[in-house]
Amino acid sequence: METTKKIQGGDVRAASRLIRNLEDHIPGAKTTIKHLFPFTGKAHVIGITGSPGAGKSTLTDGLIDCIRKKGKTVGVLAVDPTSPFTGGAILGDRIRMQRHAEDPGVFVRSLATRGALGGLAKAVGDAIHILDVMGKDVIIVETVGTGQQEVDIINHSHTVLVVLVPGMGDEIQAIKAGILEIADIFVVNKADREGSSKLSRELMAMLDMAPASAFPAGWRPPIMKVENAFEPAGFQKALNDLSDKIDDHYKHLVDHDLLGNRLRRKAAVELNEAIRASILEPVLLKLVASGEMEGAIDKLLKKEIDPYTVAEDIAKRYLEGCL
Amino acid sequence: METTKKIQGGDVRAASRLIRNLEDHIPGAKTTIKHLFPFTGKAHVIGITGSPGAGKSTLTDGLIDCIRKKGKTVGVLAVDPTSPFTGGAILGDRIRMQRHAEDPGVFVRSLATRGALGGLAKAVGDAIHILDVMGKDVIIVETVGTGQQEVDIINHSHTVLVVLVPGMGDEIQAIKAGILEIADIFVVNKADREGSSKLSRELMAMLDMAPASAFPAGWRPPIMKVENAFEPAGFQKALNDLSDKIDDHYKHLVDHDLLGNRLRRKAAVELNEAIRASILEPVLLKLVASGEMEGAIDKLLKKEIDPYTVAEDIAKRYLEGCL
Repeated sequence: METTKKIQGGDVRAASRLIRNLEDHIPGAKTTIKHLFPFTGKAHVIGITGSPGAGKSTLTDGLIDCIRKKGKTVGVLAVDPTSPFTGGAILGDRIRMQRHAEDPGVFVRSLATRGALGGLAKAVGDAIHILDVMGKDVIIVETVGTGQQEVDIINHSHTVLVVLVPGMGDEIQAIKAGILEIADIFVVNKADREGSSKLSRELMAMLDMAPASAFPAGWRPPIMKVENAFEPAGFQKALNDLSDKIDDHYKHLVDHDLLGNRLRRKAAVELNEAIRASILEPVLLKLVASGEMEGAIDKLLKKEIDPYTVAEDIAKRYLEGCL
Repeated sequence: METTKKIQGGDVRAASRLIRNLEDHIPGAKTTIKHLFPFTGKAHVIGITGSPGAGKSTLTDGLIDCIRKKGKTVGVLAVDPTSPFTGGAILGDRIRMQRHAEDPGVFVRSLATRGALGGLAKAVGDAIHILDVMGKDVIIVETVGTGQQEVDIINHSHTVLVVLVPGMGDEIQAIKAGILEIADIFVVNKADREGSSKLSRELMAMLDMAPASAFPAGWRPPIMKVENAFEPAGFQKALNDLSDKIDDHYKHLVDHDLLGNRLRRKAAVELNEAIRASILEPVLLKLVASGEMEGAIDKLLKKEIDPYTVAEDIAKRYLEGCL
């Protein structure tokens, strides 16, 4: 309960420790989240996603300034994959956005996806809750890569930015990666590069092809161009416009009663994940501890039985009479 | 049982129908897989992964030729994300690798990842079994994107190729995406582009930093350069070298008794997935059908309860006395 109070007071060390404990599955961390839960739900959560090398970190860094200038506080969660070669998150918060380190209105944390276990870091939903209870007005979740993580991000965000860059060798990169459908705002980054107009045109054509039902209450994802940092004034203006567009989107959600849908989806995802952990994990642990799992794998390898038959037998034993 | 016989005989239509039925969750498809299971485990499964636009399809297409020239048959599974904007897999097998359509020794199928449900298409493990039972000597699984899918691929493959291209704006793209650790062979594709040497040097440096334990029985992932298709002779030679290196890797696995480990991991993943489906899904279906799920989500939105407490209550009811 003391931790809850501290986090409500915006205590950076308590928040950092709790996030780390969640990542490390320290018992008790979940109990703290239970206590925090009633105080969640105030922040505007912005997801930023796109291909590696698309310049998401630089955008995030610039957006922090814009949001601070509006008098709002910011929390940033940077989801980094870990590599066994280096033994940790590649881009830690130590080297990221260091210039905001002195600003108490900004809190930046990296979350590791823990390699193959991945998808969006399991702890990210709870980490958002923590920053929310700390009182951050805006929370930015930045993810690296273009796979499942990026599709998961929509479940945690109110506004999703998909960042694209011209000249990645294949202009339909975005469609191939299946991330078009999750964008509330498209950012064509490094727009001074060759191919920028072509990329914008292709995005436009794609949006033209989409049915009206793809745009909730008429929100057609705008395409925002951001040129690179060599022209600071132009870059700053593009960032301000982007920041305003993000605010517009949030206002659109509120005005058209769409925020409820997003919150409901987020709650459903969190509940599903919690049920998975509480139903499936104890069964798997028991199967491993009793040696039954190893025995079944041996039989599978000898082709004496198939995985579906094994699983059906297990379900009968663990659920029969309980369903 | 008739389907089993047909697939064992290499019947393309029966195999295609079964894959489609698995994707569509048609009852009975899983039963057929049970019958096929004892006949699986003969093919060499090659996973090809890397960023969008890295040229994986062109590589796959070229490798098919090399493998066919060695007198072996090939199955290809191309995992494509779907987009609600287009309503299906973007690059279907209709437009992909069409020039192999007349060759009965080549079978190409696309699997859709079904958007947000994603990860590597659920059906991919079973689709590999089907191609295996059809008698394909080599099965290539090609995935698009750089997220969870690509990390999952190692669970289904004996040999994993990670394809990188120079000049993607960020040379540590591979590390950021967390795919370095899964490579058995690195391919620096489009190696005539600027930055190719830099990329190779960085990969080399990364491998130098890795502990010896990262290389099973001394297999240090080789870095194979492939220049683009403008010089057909050079391209062909690079592909032949790559194809030989893939064979070397398989031989290495067999010679050092490492194949067993990979097969064991694959079996464990399949069993875990089957257990998840048979334990978790019936509980979730019951919660949805009874309206309990909706009720719980309502309470979560009103902050009357937290997801962990709901999940623990559910686990008590469904598993208590059964564990």
